[in-house]
Amino acid sequence: MDGHLTGLILAEGGGDGFKSQTPKVLHPLLGVSMLRLSVEAVRAAGPVRIIVAAGIPAEVAAAELAGHSVEIVALSSGKGQAPLRRTLGKVAAGNPDGDILVVPADVPTVDPALLRALVARHRRQGYACTMLWADIEHQGDIKRRNLARSIEARKPVPSPTHPHRVPTGIFVFQTGDLRKVFSKAAKAGPSGRFDPAAAFSLLASSKRPLGVFLALDPDDVRRIRTRHALGQAAERMRLRKARALADAGVTVLSPGGTWIDWAVRIGPETVVYPGAVIEGPTVIGRNCRIYPNAHISGSTIGNDVHVLSSTVIDEATLEDDVRIGPFARVRMQTVLRSGSRVGNFVEMKKTDFGPGSKAMHLSYLGDSEVGPAANIGAGTITCNYDGVNKNRTVIGPGAFIGSGSELVAPVRIGKGAYVAAGSVITKDVADDALAVARGHQVEKPGWAAARREKLAAAKKTSGHKK
Amino acid sequence: MDGHLTGLILAEGGGDGFKSQTPKVLHPLLGVSMLRLSVEAVRAAGPVRIIVAAGIPAEVAAAELAGHSVEIVALSSGKGQAPLRRTLGKVAAGNPDGDILVVPADVPTVDPALLRALVARHRRQGYACTMLWADIEHQGDIKRRNLARSIEARKPVPSPTHPHRVPTGIFVFQTGDLRKVFSKAAKAGPSGRFDPAAAFSLLASSKRPLGVFLALDPDDVRRIRTRHALGQAAERMRLRKARALADAGVTVLSPGGTWIDWAVRIGPETVVYPGAVIEGPTVIGRNCRIYPNAHISGSTIGNDVHVLSSTVIDEATLEDDVRIGPFARVRMQTVLRSGSRVGNFVEMKKTDFGPGSKAMHLSYLGDSEVGPAANIGAGTITCNYDGVNKNRTVIGPGAFIGSGSELVAPVRIGKGAYVAAGSVITKDVADDALAVARGHQVEKPGWAAARREKLAAAKKTSGHKK
Amino acid sequence: MDGHLTGLILAEGGGDGFKSQTPKVLHPLLGVSMLRLSVEAVRAAGPVRIIVAAGIPAEVAAAELAGHSVEIVALSSGKGQAPLRRTLGKVAAGNPDGDILVVPADVPTVDPALLRALVARHRRQGYACTMLWADIEHQGDIKRRNLARSIEARKPVPSPTHPHRVPTGIFVFQTGDLRKVFSKAAKAGPSGRFDPAAAFSLLASSKRPLGVFLALDPDDVRRIRTRHALGQAAERMRLRKARALADAGVTVLSPGGTWIDWAVRIGPETVVYPGAVIEGPTVIGRNCRIYPNAHISGSTIGNDVHVLSSTVIDEATLEDDVRIGPFARVRMQTVLRSGSRVGNFVEMKKTDFGPGSKAMHLSYLGDSEVGPAANIGAGTITCNYDGVNKNRTVIGPGAFIGSGSELVAPVRIGKGAYVAAGSVITKDVADDALAVARGHQVEKPGWAAARREKLAAAKKTSGHKK
Repeated sequence: MDGHLTGLILAEGGGDGFKSQTPKVLHPLLGVSMLRLSVEAVRAAGPVRIIVAAGIPAEVAAAELAGHSVEIVALSSGKGQAPLRRTLGKVAAGNPDGDILVVPADVPTVDPALLRALVARHRRQGYACTMLWADIEHQGDIKRRNLARSIEARKPVPSPTHPHRVPTGIFVFQTGDLRKVFSKAAKAGPSGRFDPAAAFSLLASSKRPLGVFLALDPDDVRRIRTRHALGQAAERMRLRKARALADAGVTVLSPGGTWIDWAVRIGPETVVYPGAVIEGPTVIGRNCRIYPNAHISGSTIGNDVHVLSSTVIDEATLEDDVRIGPFARVRMQTVLRSGSRVGNFVEMKKTDFGPGSKAMHLSYLGDSEVGPAANIGAGTITCNYDGVNKNRTVIGPGAFIGSGSELVAPVRIGKGAYVAAGSVITKDVADDALAVARGHQVEKPGWAAARREKLAAAKKTSGHKK
Repeated sequence: MDGHLTGLILAEGGGDGFKSQTPKVLHPLLGVSMLRLSVEAVRAAGPVRIIVAAGIPAEVAAAELAGHSVEIVALSSGKGQAPLRRTLGKVAAGNPDGDILVVPADVPTVDPALLRALVARHRRQGYACTMLWADIEHQGDIKRRNLARSIEARKPVPSPTHPHRVPTGIFVFQTGDLRKVFSKAAKAGPSGRFDPAAAFSLLASSKRPLGVFLALDPDDVRRIRTRHALGQAAERMRLRKARALADAGVTVLSPGGTWIDWAVRIGPETVVYPGAVIEGPTVIGRNCRIYPNAHISGSTIGNDVHVLSSTVIDEATLEDDVRIGPFARVRMQTVLRSGSRVGNFVEMKKTDFGPGSKAMHLSYLGDSEVGPAANIGAGTITCNYDGVNKNRTVIGPGAFIGSGSELVAPVRIGKGAYVAAGSVITKDVADDALAVARGHQVEKPGWAAARREKLAAAKKTSGHKK
Repeated sequence: MDGHLTGLILAEGGGDGFKSQTPKVLHPLLGVSMLRLSVEAVRAAGPVRIIVAAGIPAEVAAAELAGHSVEIVALSSGKGQAPLRRTLGKVAAGNPDGDILVVPADVPTVDPALLRALVARHRRQGYACTMLWADIEHQGDIKRRNLARSIEARKPVPSPTHPHRVPTGIFVFQTGDLRKVFSKAAKAGPSGRFDPAAAFSLLASSKRPLGVFLALDPDDVRRIRTRHALGQAAERMRLRKARALADAGVTVLSPGGTWIDWAVRIGPETVVYPGAVIEGPTVIGRNCRIYPNAHISGSTIGNDVHVLSSTVIDEATLEDDVRIGPFARVRMQTVLRSGSRVGNFVEMKKTDFGPGSKAMHLSYLGDSEVGPAANIGAGTITCNYDGVNKNRTVIGPGAFIGSGSELVAPVRIGKGAYVAAGSVITKDVADDALAVARGHQVEKPGWAAARREKLAAAKKTSGHKK
């Protein structure tokens, strides 16, 4: 009774009701694959080792589970269940008094506390096997101290008398007992897969009793068999994430109108507005404001940062006290240094933007390095692409780039230098110098009035042809 | 018993609780008017002909129902119900054993399967009339095989004993029986309208029995009498649409956070992110990604297209493998050819954008034709409007437009031609030529430092006046 | 029995479960602080005076409640409850037959009709005190005529026998009775605060009976103790706001997918699309269209205005018949005059934009004044900042600014004047004149083809080093 707990995750390879070329268990739920979520839930239940029986290619499963210490047993066609049986055989041999927690990878939202309660009950009662069922008539908020209740049963099918009780596919087996019936159970499942329900039935003649454990909140143990069910599970998980954030001191103004991936971390006192979409892995600091319809993914954001509406941040780093947006887009290895300001219709790519520098309007900085306290005028464009190569632009500390300038890279603007509005800069500019590259203003009095009359007359003449 | 089924849709003209100048039945639900949805629901129930009794002007009803084969009978004030009575008289004469399914146009979300079950039950029992009621105590997901159950009743008003049962306004009448009582029933309704409930009462003395059929899911047979109810119905229909898409292999990550019109079609393996709004009639192909807060309407999108965040696509065509956005806007007869790329802060209007061509930043192409594999630099603007006329720009295959250029239309850039950054192009450019139209760069050393001091000093002097 | 009603709002200063540096009662719900909402709910219940017992600094409470006629009694540490006791003493002395409605500031969504019903019942029965409880087993839509029912009780704690009944913190006290027990009740609460529940208990020996009133819809009387509860309350209030708007003739297409602050007013026949976020204090007129993902705050919008997708409007005024967006941003004292048009990627700041004028693409107008019927070409930029000062641009009626122009402020473009595309304007332009300031177009035949070959060859050579 005192042996180890082993976790066994059944990651079938099929698409099930997904009509997808991607295996079902690799579909994400709030940004994390069902397979990975399952592993994380099982890990939190405390087993000493986790085995993933992978119906998908082992290397795909391994890549998806990078960073997790799991053993992957391939269930490739041809070899059938033999590799899994051998592995379980070894588990049982080394741990005859242990237990195996079997969880299908399509119940990824199961609460680890429920799994722990299931295992504890199973051990306390000395069952050969305990199944987890759900009571689908229970709806809504269940008080968390009553996750489940126990039913004793030697028969595996309580459903005819209780049609609202459904199996979850989750089981705990006593290691030795499972070993005895594994081979037969492996023939019972569809296409020769190991069928834990069959194993449960086969154990009815075991010396030990069998148990059924009933989850009172069915939502978190529903098997996800269709894309529709996936969407529903995502909505529930979204609210769960919102609750966890609130508990950590984050204000999500509209929990139902905001999408925050499971893997996102946010500091206290930060406020997230409706319509924001934050994808993982993103870390956001303290006391930030994330305004409506911002879309952030794979980024690191410091403290006291304001991300104004409809801003897109992708694989970028924002240091403390940055203001960005609305309608800004920073991406690909861009770093906005502390206190910098990026305004509307501004794009940055592979750019290191200096502390306190500003680019407030209609600009594109690509492959650039901008020193501290520089001012990038409206409509500034780094011409980083010559049709073949990408070239770098370097802008010195305190430089002032006049509006509507093109900086033809490779080019360097000196410290404190000034580029006149509307200039096309093709040569380096020295520190503290002024560079001008534009035409002179010429005026033709009365020209506009005359032209208007001419065009209007021409339009009148040609109007009927259009 | 074996006669035809005729559908009769009662499209009252009033605004009801909408406080609207638009007739209630023309208000849309997920992009389709209640009237049109009602016709589609009744059509799917299988009648051989559909008559719309239109309280709204007949030509308005006809325009709204374009493409549907329906007969429209105007209930214009003055003529009262006479035209409808004459029409039904003809229906009855030609089809004495038939039935008439009466559906008010403000129950647009009724399930056609429920209507079919209603008619089948009515015919099987040989009723003179069967009313459809709803049990409003039923909430949430009803299993679809149990849409309704039958109650037999000679009395039309079961409500006192069952206060949670409410009428839906939906009836099936035996053709001949209805004909007999139509005139009296037409006097019973408000302002002399035909009142099916009165007809039901009048038939209590008929030879045939009367029936009541009880819908178990009230949501889909709720009459929409207020804008509030319309909004609630839209929310339910939105989830129904999301479910249908999921069943077709589309992933809608957040069914509750995405708006997809009823008339939108999407191919399998496409993923729609939260915050996307897709209005009909739009068709989206296979394996696309529609990122957050995109707004698509009236457009055709091919396969493997990525629409990045906050992109607006309106009446445009995107061929396969296009990448667009974020913050792009294409509209009005724009075609993005296969494999083309449109980036942030780029607008296109009436533009044919060639295969593999790119316009990645801050540009406006209007009334343009761009050949294949052209590169449109950041900040390129077609000056298509001269204050009076719109003129065309043609850019040849493989052309390179340097950043910050204005192309003053009408103008033609040759095949493989190169426009230097910051140029204002007013004349055609030959194939493979370079065109430059900008000032030369001049430098004034130390100018910027001197100016800074002067401006700062001036500001200090005038500072207190502001 | 006929005395005045006084409202007493208990605004504790703590953060409770919010983990916030901002006092809990100052956190907003749909844009309005809990404290302010509480005052508004109590005011609507009809008391002749309202006293706010402020655990937060009195001046902070006063600022938050600006515009409301309330008396603020500071519960600063040190002075304890003495100031409140003195105030209530005066209330009781001047109004011995009156009643005091005690409402904690963390039940801000309480329905004023429920408060009125509570007070009416309390007075009719001649109770010394009536507590409001909620039945948390009731869920969903409660018919509004049955807000609550009465239970008589001399004991304050019905919870053991009815675990699903919870206190709301709301009480009505008979003025004289409360005065007698206030001192003891003020010692009973946490950290010496006045505890109404203790007062209720102390009144058990009073001559008058005590009452309990049971709210049937628990949602609106739930105390908000955590950020999670705040978010949930916001979601409920959001739907309540959507319903109020629908009743006023506004179509909110997706009540669950739209965020409209409590303090926003919208005229009839206006349609709000999904994803719009409208923050107060904003007023929107009749027959407008607010398209998806627009973000509007602190602005005034006239009638027949169309705000296209993803437009940001902040502290601006839009007169009638304006079209703006998509991807436009107007802010800070900008006025768009009647019939003007602002298109995509256009920003305006401190700009008065004349009636019928157009700025359709990629422009920045700051500190500007634009006359009527002017046309601002794509890519126009006002260079309003010289690195030290902000300067003004004035554009006359009917002026035409060619695309890609920079207007270096301070500058004035005359009435009917024309600026050629791509010009940098540094000097004023006279009425009806043409101004040109750009380079001449020069062509180098074959240059582009030659360069392509050279660059490609160079890239091939250096390719392996990258």
